[in-house]
Amino acid sequence: MYPLNPAVAATFAPPVMEARRWLAEVPLPPGLPLLNVSQAAPVDPPPLALRQALAQAALDQPQAHLYGPVLGLPELRAEIAAQWSAAYGGQVAEDQVAITQGCNQAFCAALATLAGPGDEVILPTPWYFNHRMWLEMAGVRCVPLATGAGLLPDAGAAAALVTGRTRAIVLVSPNNPGGAEYPAETLAAFHDLARTRGLALVVDETYRDFDSREGRPHALFADPDWHDTLIQLYSFSKAYRLTGHRVGAIVASRARLTEVEKVLDTVAICPNQLGQLGALWGMRNLRDWVAGERAEILARRAAIAAGFPGLEGWRLLGCGAYFAYAEHPFALAGSALGRALLAQAGVLALPGTMFTPPGDPRGPQGLRIAFANIDRAGIAELFARLAGLTLDRR
Amino acid sequence: MYPLNPAVAATFAPPVMEARRWLAEVPLPPGLPLLNVSQAAPVDPPPLALRQALAQAALDQPQAHLYGPVLGLPELRAEIAAQWSAAYGGQVAEDQVAITQGCNQAFCAALATLAGPGDEVILPTPWYFNHRMWLEMAGVRCVPLATGAGLLPDAGAAAALVTGRTRAIVLVSPNNPGGAEYPAETLAAFHDLARTRGLALVVDETYRDFDSREGRPHALFADPDWHDTLIQLYSFSKAYRLTGHRVGAIVASRARLTEVEKVLDTVAICPNQLGQLGALWGMRNLRDWVAGERAEILARRAAIAAGFPGLEGWRLLGCGAYFAYAEHPFALAGSALGRALLAQAGVLALPGTMFTPPGDPRGPQGLRIAFANIDRAGIAELFARLAGLTLDRR
Repeated sequence: MYPLNPAVAATFAPPVMEARRWLAEVPLPPGLPLLNVSQAAPVDPPPLALRQALAQAALDQPQAHLYGPVLGLPELRAEIAAQWSAAYGGQVAEDQVAITQGCNQAFCAALATLAGPGDEVILPTPWYFNHRMWLEMAGVRCVPLATGAGLLPDAGAAAALVTGRTRAIVLVSPNNPGGAEYPAETLAAFHDLARTRGLALVVDETYRDFDSREGRPHALFADPDWHDTLIQLYSFSKAYRLTGHRVGAIVASRARLTEVEKVLDTVAICPNQLGQLGALWGMRNLRDWVAGERAEILARRAAIAAGFPGLEGWRLLGCGAYFAYAEHPFALAGSALGRALLAQAGVLALPGTMFTPPGDPRGPQGLRIAFANIDRAGIAELFARLAGLTLDRR
Repeated sequence: MYPLNPAVAATFAPPVMEARRWLAEVPLPPGLPLLNVSQAAPVDPPPLALRQALAQAALDQPQAHLYGPVLGLPELRAEIAAQWSAAYGGQVAEDQVAITQGCNQAFCAALATLAGPGDEVILPTPWYFNHRMWLEMAGVRCVPLATGAGLLPDAGAAAALVTGRTRAIVLVSPNNPGGAEYPAETLAAFHDLARTRGLALVVDETYRDFDSREGRPHALFADPDWHDTLIQLYSFSKAYRLTGHRVGAIVASRARLTEVEKVLDTVAICPNQLGQLGALWGMRNLRDWVAGERAEILARRAAIAAGFPGLEGWRLLGCGAYFAYAEHPFALAGSALGRALLAQAGVLALPGTMFTPPGDPRGPQGLRIAFANIDRAGIAELFARLAGLTLDRR
């Protein structure tokens, strides 16, 4: 095929779609229904009251079907600003919030304003594959930052990777794929590093609503100058089960959002209006419901943490929010491992190689388990199936 | 602000958002309500039956709220394939169709697979500003192709612009901003040129449902090898008044869509599911309704074409689908012209400078009028107001 942009051609195929292809190709073992822990995707729709609110808006609000402002519905931007200011103990203004077509787009739009071909961005490993894919397609070099115990990154180690081409450090907390909840001091240290070196600190808090800690997870917004350095990303997909509506957000300086507006106008024109109305309704009405969801997911997390020590040869490296990242004992890796898990145990999960640069041992030895999708009975079943695997060991 | 990607910084602010700012800043003349012909945006929501279908899906279909395949709902892809095969007299398969979050995203995703920094893309002028903005931000050089009478481009003139870095020619028919319906022979000549020189021919047919010609507008899909060269873009926004749902499409080769899937996975994850269900419902149920919309818009077009000769000093350069592109007689240009039209006549329209490279006389002398947004009474009022303008003439 010609013409073909070599930067896109060199990028690997989407992991979640590759996993869907295994599902189409690999027969499940007899008697074992699929246990899908491959994607952070709610399996149930939003609560009925939210679906009713969406249906009502579709019928009654003409604006739900028509173009809106590029940076999103003013009411939703204001609601985020108000709730964030209270939750993080800082000042976030309505015009420091932009709404996007999902959090992946929030990342792409923010990064497009930061870095171009030949620039560098530092990402702790294991990393979120879509972050790497965007940067690679944009010609930006991904600089991997190996994480330590608990899959936590260290700002001192990051400092040694900063060059004249570094433009940003990207952190995801709670982490995808690692599950780690980054301590407030870790985030503060990265913020200091970024400020000192003139970099942006991008913090993706897609999973913030399922953080196990009470109160604010960090104090970055308490700094009145946060917007000089910090760019925060958020998603409405998980908290309100709105994955199919594609609504996310960027919290950043006004000057940054003026640049983001150029990108979003060109790629999106505006975020999906009905989805934004759903997100707004959720923020205003589902606080208690989300608290219940969080409690359930934290219980699932506890079941995951309790189960791994009994699984011979496995080691749980990180666990939190939607994800566990584990070291498995098998000789297989990558797609071969993913297919074997499906064929032998009916378990669909993404291998660590999808989250790591070549040469990182946590790739071939790793497995991400998106446990939030299965209930506690499902988690017990998962451990039983993993325990029964008869694959060759390393 | 630092860090800042210079390619994004150098790109101009979104024209439609700039026009919204004029609206906030410029007081309307007393007694003259706003006449908004700035954007190709339906002012009414979709018909009630479509809104009801959306509401029902929001209530009853769990999948409407959850992630779907990156390249879109299989039923919608199949529906496009079937209707396109019939309408264009060619073979389009389901897996040669991808759904996107609107047609702007279709353009960005397609072009990202074609061209990278330093490459060149040929665009007839006046051009659609978002096309130019994306290419500029991606570091791709926009090569302007001056159009002739009727704002029609000439393939022979384009041939002289092809270099070793050219990757694609982008045509929009019916044209935004020019309104021109490109003759089938023009499109065939560009297709031949693109095929001969190993380029992609991207044809944006966002406004195809309002083409004045009966039958297929071109025979490109009748070539069994169309997918070697042709990439067609489409939007559901105009035909079904779904602008706020952001649903568009790319029709291209399977190999191309494998590359597009990488881009869309990273930027979108999937298109908005509910919007796709709305588009599918529209395609299956609103054929007669769309035919009525087309008839009304063609009547508005006739009113525009009939009115211009009576407007002293003006010249209609192109007219079709949603747009008229006219040469105005005034000394003012650009933002100053836009603001003056608003202040003196209460008319919001985008000046030609937003659609042209520097130095192109059709920029300062041009004005785009998105007439599809106003009814025939509104068009009469528009002419009355333009006739009454007392701005200095060139």
